[in-house]
This record gives sequence, structure tokens and C-alpha cells, in this order.
Amino acid sequence: MPSSPIRVTVWHEHVHDRTNDAVKKLYPDGMHTVVKQAIEEHLGNDVTVRTALLEQPDHGLTDEVLANTDVLTWWGHCAHDQVDDAIVQKVHRRVLEGMGLVVLHSGHYAKIFKKLLGTTCSLRWREAGEKERLWCLMPGHPIADGLDDEYFEIEHTEMYGELFDIPTPDELIFVSWFEGGEVFRSGCTWNRGKGKIFYFRPGHETFPIYYHKQVRRVIANAVKHLAPSRSSAPVRLEAPCIDPPLSPITTVHQVDQSLHDH
Amino acid sequence: MPSSPIRVTVWHEHVHDRTNDAVKKLYPDGMHTVVKQAIEEHLGNDVTVRTALLEQPDHGLTDEVLANTDVLTWWGHCAHDQVDDAIVQKVHRRVLEGMGLVVLHSGHYAKIFKKLLGTTCSLRWREAGEKERLWCLMPGHPIADGLDDEYFEIEHTEMYGELFDIPTPDELIFVSWFEGGEVFRSGCTWNRGKGKIFYFRPGHETFPIYYHKQVRRVIANAVKHLAPSRSSAPVRLEAPCIDPPLSPITTVHQVDQSLHDH
Amino acid sequence: MPSSPIRVTVWHEHVHDRTNDAVKKLYPDGMHTVVKQAIEEHLGNDVTVRTALLEQPDHGLTDEVLANTDVLTWWGHCAHDQVDDAIVQKVHRRVLEGMGLVVLHSGHYAKIFKKLLGTTCSLRWREAGEKERLWCLMPGHPIADGLDDEYFEIEHTEMYGELFDIPTPDELIFVSWFEGGEVFRSGCTWNRGKGKIFYFRPGHETFPIYYHKQVRRVIANAVKHLAPSRSSAPVRLEAPCIDPPLSPITTVHQVDQSLHDH
Amino acid sequence: MPSSPIRVTVWHEHVHDRTNDAVKKLYPDGMHTVVKQAIEEHLGNDVTVRTALLEQPDHGLTDEVLANTDVLTWWGHCAHDQVDDAIVQKVHRRVLEGMGLVVLHSGHYAKIFKKLLGTTCSLRWREAGEKERLWCLMPGHPIADGLDDEYFEIEHTEMYGELFDIPTPDELIFVSWFEGGEVFRSGCTWNRGKGKIFYFRPGHETFPIYYHKQVRRVIANAVKHLAPSRSSAPVRLEAPCIDPPLSPITTVHQVDQSLHDH
Repeated sequence: MPSSPIRVTVWHEHVHDRTNDAVKKLYPDGMHTVVKQAIEEHLGNDVTVRTALLEQPDHGLTDEVLANTDVLTWWGHCAHDQVDDAIVQKVHRRVLEGMGLVVLHSGHYAKIFKKLLGTTCSLRWREAGEKERLWCLMPGHPIADGLDDEYFEIEHTEMYGELFDIPTPDELIFVSWFEGGEVFRSGCTWNRGKGKIFYFRPGHETFPIYYHKQVRRVIANAVKHLAPSRSSAPVRLEAPCIDPPLSPITTVHQVDQSLHDH
Repeated sequence: MPSSPIRVTVWHEHVHDRTNDAVKKLYPDGMHTVVKQAIEEHLGNDVTVRTALLEQPDHGLTDEVLANTDVLTWWGHCAHDQVDDAIVQKVHRRVLEGMGLVVLHSGHYAKIFKKLLGTTCSLRWREAGEKERLWCLMPGHPIADGLDDEYFEIEHTEMYGELFDIPTPDELIFVSWFEGGEVFRSGCTWNRGKGKIFYFRPGHETFPIYYHKQVRRVIANAVKHLAPSRSSAPVRLEAPCIDPPLSPITTVHQVDQSLHDH
Repeated sequence: MPSSPIRVTVWHEHVHDRTNDAVKKLYPDGMHTVVKQAIEEHLGNDVTVRTALLEQPDHGLTDEVLANTDVLTWWGHCAHDQVDDAIVQKVHRRVLEGMGLVVLHSGHYAKIFKKLLGTTCSLRWREAGEKERLWCLMPGHPIADGLDDEYFEIEHTEMYGELFDIPTPDELIFVSWFEGGEVFRSGCTWNRGKGKIFYFRPGHETFPIYYHKQVRRVIANAVKHLAPSRSSAPVRLEAPCIDPPLSPITTVHQVDQSLHDH
Repeated sequence: MPSSPIRVTVWHEHVHDRTNDAVKKLYPDGMHTVVKQAIEEHLGNDVTVRTALLEQPDHGLTDEVLANTDVLTWWGHCAHDQVDDAIVQKVHRRVLEGMGLVVLHSGHYAKIFKKLLGTTCSLRWREAGEKERLWCLMPGHPIADGLDDEYFEIEHTEMYGELFDIPTPDELIFVSWFEGGEVFRSGCTWNRGKGKIFYFRPGHETFPIYYHKQVRRVIANAVKHLAPSRSSAPVRLEAPCIDPPLSPITTVHQVDQSLHDH
């Protein structure tokens, strides 16, 4: 963990909490405000958190903001296709360079998530206000730190079920049980370049999910865990020609450079 | 393995073996012809192999060809950006549906490979005609079947070195040692949807790589291993709403359907 | 898959189906007979199946039987500690050499399973005759071949729940949902040496689990998938000194051989 | 990372540095002293480090020491079989409970390492004073933090080569290139229970490996990374019966308790 505060940007689509009365009532200042508070509540002076919204110029993700973000959290639902491809490309680059990315709930369909994972990220779903029980498969994992039992429950929620079309996670931390009969890989990490991604399922804007004690703890844990270490190793995302070689080569070889110039 | 023959399509960029004398001399009928022969040599009546070229309509990858391909092999080097995005999209869909994909050498920069993996797939390289020794880390793997020793050698080759910017492979089968001092993850698999991907490093068009005994064996093994099983499980790549639930839910919940209509 | 039949040995503890009336009624000829039939039903002439029982000399696992077994299936429950350590050692060796091992249900506590995985393999459980729904996370996997839907159900069964104390599986194929509120990693593979292991949860001797259509199919699929390929690569399970080196070393170095003689 | 200091125990076999003149000259106060200093040099007040030796009562690993160890480092070579099985059993338990374990060089043959991994952990080797170049495959990993380049070199060392008979690592951080022609998975992690294991190859007592700048940094990084988080989740390493169920079960079922009493 860096000794200076982790610089977090909470990105939010911010549509339903402006347009839908039920959501507005739950999140009067926007869901991003509540996610921001959850992170600050647990990490205090170890973080500085700003927010960024779809409606802002560059969706709030200017080059300057991205360059100064250690961990980005992402929530979107109905406006994924309004996110500019050029911004997605920049976020993608920053993840490969080491920025952590926490993708929440319906963010599974965000362009950036699909681009990083390479699959459709589709799933089964149902909104029936049913019970969810999240089982922890890696109780020693920093993202599960401080949970009081082998599972925690969300009394009423939307269901997401398998088959979740994702690559095999590098770590599978939570699996959900749903009252209506499904299971779901609810807490997953993947490495991409120098960056780490954490997908965390709980959500849906019509339930008070981001006020839920353990959900808040897990998001804060993830922010802490995904903050890049201060490695000085260079990341080369181009393809450098290494010449002369590091160790001697006995062969004498004539290169046709034209085959490499493209 | 299917009881009917595996339907293989060998895709080739086919530029350098038309335009460069040295390459033309090595592969007078095109590299695709030699790759095709390697597969047929080992799998005989268990396969039917066709070829497809960049220069053909739809790059030879029409809907009909793709729908009837169990395993696609891919070689490209200097013309990756001439591959139509719409075709890439169709190949991507077919992999998720179960089609195997064998990516060879400089295909690491193919659009389809980067799209499936989500990273830049960059690497270090050097063309110095040096020696490569491929060590097998999974001697029990079907893709390593029939190799006679713990490693095999390529006397003169182009070097590819780490850091190879890929997601952690689901299986790491071969790691290369290079005379000039690098190592490389040369044989890797990943699962995406119902499909399997195998990346195999050896290549470069100025060396007779695809005439090499063990290289040919590994490519044929991979074709056999990646052929989809005849599972009748449906693949749902959309996000179906599951209602009514599979098991009873006690809560009575009112859905705001407008939040889901987008 | 080998062209000659896969040689399967079905190992069974064979205690409860001799001593308990309810189990005897379900499995009058022993559970091993039913497992054997399940494999033969699906694989026919592609397999030859024998059985081996705890009560037999060497538990039926003589050197000759082990040397001629491609895949071993294992069911035990109440008599794990009666299995001789010397036999466990031999089975362990054979797995590393390439023999497949299918561990069923309460076999999670078998000595050989714990020895191969390195953990306690403990879990939560309850016998309440509840419903289990097994979700397939890898619908393209050969072990899931031929299943008709995204899940299958067992109407009445014993529950096994997380936390299942196992190393992260190399492949997680099935996750179970239980009516009473738990989830479980029910179908897992691990590689050990040249061998593959498959753990499959369904079972308990008071339910007719091994007559269940999809359970039988999965076991047969696993047998086929775990059969070793005919690789000729040598497996060196000792630590050979490689001298002279494969490639030239410039340093002149004096070895103190006494440090290596132990 | 815990806010109180990480409690580290450096375990050492301590045979060759008492009996062999060359080793004695390199490590006059024992290798454990040098490993201890390496950890303290980098982690300062964030650690308290003690040492424990084979020759001590309980090999220095009393119940009290183990209970108060967050991370244990392990070096052994010629006296693995003198380590008491009862102590190995206790260390095993502590790893499952969350204690980190750093296994160094010839510790690959330690009883505790083989017990946790389930394989023979055999490898190829050669002592020829050759060059080793360790390539970093995960430059964003905390264990690689602070390394200045994509690789680091050890000028003269013993060689360890593949096939290294280990389970697929959960993370593969370093792969070594050897002058004499081999490659090796030199930095690997595995999860077991709540504990994490890191194997780090560099070593051999006749070379000044534990004075090497980057080797020292990696060992210190590993200690920091493997320190258990302060999760309050209980670890149940027995198999508890969960009755009554968490969620209602509709079936009425009669249990034959005798089948579970063993």
C-alpha cells in the first residue's frame, strides 16, 4: 500500500437517480455520493476520493484525472453505450499501467469491463426482491477482511445468475446463493497488465445496497487491495526490439528489415 | 472428440510469401498450405482442412465457413489492420459459441487475439537466428502428446521475450529459453465462453518453422484438443430474465419495469 | 483418448452397503456395481471396468492392478483410516505418473485426496433430504458434455457447503445451490504431476444418487477426460543432475560434491 | 497489512554453515542471520524477526512460537528428514489458519512444502556457477515491488530446471533463464486454507545469494505480502453439521444417524 493516500475516483452513470422517483428517494445526492462515503468511512486518511459522472466533460475522466487515479470504481446500467470509446480506450490503458478498477453490479455490461475481459459478460437475472447469501471462498483474502462470518446476507435484492460469461477469474472470492434457485460468482478478480480488476455483484438501484454494512466494507477493502504498489519496473506496452542481445549468440544472421517495418 | 471429422480452417494473411523472395522460397505454395499439411499429416481422416486468406472475399471467412468450422488457426504479421472489424466480430462470436482458435507466432497482434484477451499482447523481440529450447511444463497435457523429451529445440529462430502482456493463461504448457537471454510463455491456453484458445509462439516466415517435426505435432495436437465437444447445453449470450423463479420466493415485490427497458 | 480401451478401476469402501438395511436396499450388489454400470453404459467398448474393495488383499489395488489402471474412481465414507498408508503412497505415485483419479462425494476425506491436495478438505454438511441444483460454469468442458440444460437437479440429497477447504481448483465446472441456503464447488479438477483429479460431490449412500441420469453421465465423461494421453515424454520424479549442460557455460566452477551427497 | 509489526520467524536447517568451510566463510553467523537482516533492512519497524534452528528443542518451533508467527521462512537442504513429523503437522495447521510461508531454494524438498503441495517437488539441477536471469511476469505484483527492471541477474549460481513437479501456481511471478539452457518457475504463490505460500528459488549455500540486493528485496516483499490480514472470519477446519438450515427446506426427512457416527 502506498504511504501517500490512495487516490480514488468513483465513476457513476447517474441517470436513474435523477429520473426515477424510487431511486431518487434512496440516493437523493446520487449513488456516487454513497459509494464515496463508504470508502471514506473505512479508509479515512488513507484515501482521497473524488467523483466523476457521465454527464461531465470527458465523463469526468480527463487525462489529468486518470493520471492521478490509483483506483477507479464504476457503476453504470442503462447508458453504457453513451460512454465515449476514446475514454474507454484511455481507461483501458490506465488499467494496464496499474490503475485498479472496481466494477459494481450492472457495470458487468460496461464497455471497459467487456474490453478488459474479452467476453460478453452476459448473465441471467430477475428482480423479485429475493434474499441473497454471499459465501466467502477465500476467507484469508484482503478483500474479505473484517467480515464476521462465513457468509453475509442481503435481505432483498435483484438476482444475477450463472452462466456469467466471463473468463475464469484469477481469484473467486464470493459466490452468491439466491432464494429463487441460482448461484453466481459475485466477487472475482482478474489481472490485466499491471492492473487488477475486482467485480462485485451486489447492487440494483431500487434497493439500499450501498448502505449495507458488509457491502461497504468489501468495496473499501477492494480499493485498498487494488491500489498499485510503487514498483519502479517499467511497463513496456509497445514491442521493443532487443538488440544487442543480453547474452551472446553464436549464429551470424542476416535480417531482412523490410519484414519488420510495418 | 467428435466422431465425425473435425472441420478445420487454416487462415493466413498471405502477404510476405507472395512479396518476399526468401519467404517465397521457403513457402512456395504459401505458409497455409504447409500448416494444412501438418494437421493432415497427424490427424488424417479425423479432420477435413480448408484454407482461407485475407485477400479473399470476407477474408475467406464467410458466415457459412465460420458456421462449419470447429477449429480455426490464425497466422498474420504485417496486415493485421487490414482485417475487417465485422469479420473479427463474427470470429469472436464463434469462439464464444465453442469454436477452437489456434493463434500462431506473430498472430499475437491479431485483432481477434487482442479482443479475446483484453490486453495489448505486446512482447520483446529480436531476429538474430538464435537457438530456442521449448520446455514442457505440463507433460501430461494432450497438446504435448507424443513429444519425445522434456524439451524440443529450434536451431534458428526469431526471439519473443517477456514481458508478454497477456492475462494469466488458464494453462501454461511451454516456456521457451532463448540463447540471447530471454524466456517466453510459448504455449498457453485460455477459455472464453464455450471456446478454447491456444497460442503457440514458434514462427517467423524467414525460418522453416512449419516444417519442424515437433512444431507440426503440437499444432495438430492443439487442433484435436480444441475441437468442441458435442455438448447440447445451450449457450445464452444475451441476458435472459428468469421469471418465474426456479425455487419459491417468499417476498412480494413490485418491479419498476422502466428501469430494465433499455 | 487412447485407441485401446480405457482401463478403469472402481474402488469402493463397501461398508454401509453391507451393514445398513436402507443402503443395502438401494445398492443390493454394492454401490461399486452401480458406478461400474454407469461408466459402461456411456462408454461401452471404449472402457474395461473392474472393481476393487477395501476388504480385498491390498484393498484390491495390487501393483499389477494399479499399473494397469488408466482411471481410478474412489468412494469411501466411514473407513478412510482403514486404508493402508503404503497403498495410498502407491496410488499417489500412479496419479503423478498420469493415472486419472475421480473422487466421489464423501471421498473428500480420503487419505489419497488430502495427500494430493495438501489441505484438510473439510466442509459443512447436513442430511435433510433437500433439493440440490448443480449449475454448470464451463458448458464447453468435456466433463459437462451432453447435459441438456444450464443446470441439473437432484431432488433429495445430503448437503455439502462452503467453506470447502481445498486449493483453488484448476477448473471449476459445477457449483451447487442447496435449498437450505448453501453453495458448494461440486465439480473441480486439479492437475498433479502428469495426472488429473476430478472431485464430484453428489452422493450419500441413503439416496439413489448413482442411478441419477446426469450424475452417471458426468462420471462417465470424467473417466473419458481423465484418461492419460499416450505421451512418450519421460516423467522424472527424482531430481537428476544435468551435466554437461545443454548450452555452453563460460564460468569455470569447482563443485564441492559433499554438499550434494545426502 | 497489520498495523502492529509482522511477527516473522526465520527457520534454518543450519548444518552446512557449521560443517563446511566454504559455507562457513560466506555465512559466519549462519545463513539465518543474513536472511533476518535482509527482512529487517527493508521492513524496519514493520517487523519483529526471530530465528529458529533444527538443532533447537522442537526445532525452535514450539507451540508458543508458532502461535505468534505471522510469516515463517524456511531453508533446508541436507537434513529434511530430520524434521519431526509432529512439527511439520503443526506448521501445516498454522498455514491453513493463515500463517504465511516463504520457502527458499532447496526448501523445495522440505516435508512441509511437499505436504502442502501434494507433489514430489522434484526438479533438474546442476552446480556450475552459471548465470541466472530472473524475468518478472507480474510487474504489478507486491512481491516484485521496487525492482528496477524487467529482470534481475545472479552472476553465479546453482541451476534448478524444469520439470518442477508442483501444482500449477496460483501466481507465477518469476521465471528464470539459465546460461546452461534451462528455464524454471522461480517465484510462485499458492493459497492453502487461509494461508499463502511463496516459493523463491535463488540460493545454494556456496554462493552469496542472500547478500544479493534484489533477492533480499523480494524476500522482504514476500514477508509483507504474506502477512495475514486481520479478518475475523472463523476458519472451520473440522466438518460442522449445519442444523437447522439457514433457509427453509420443504422435505421431511428421517436421518439414520449411525451412518454419520464414525
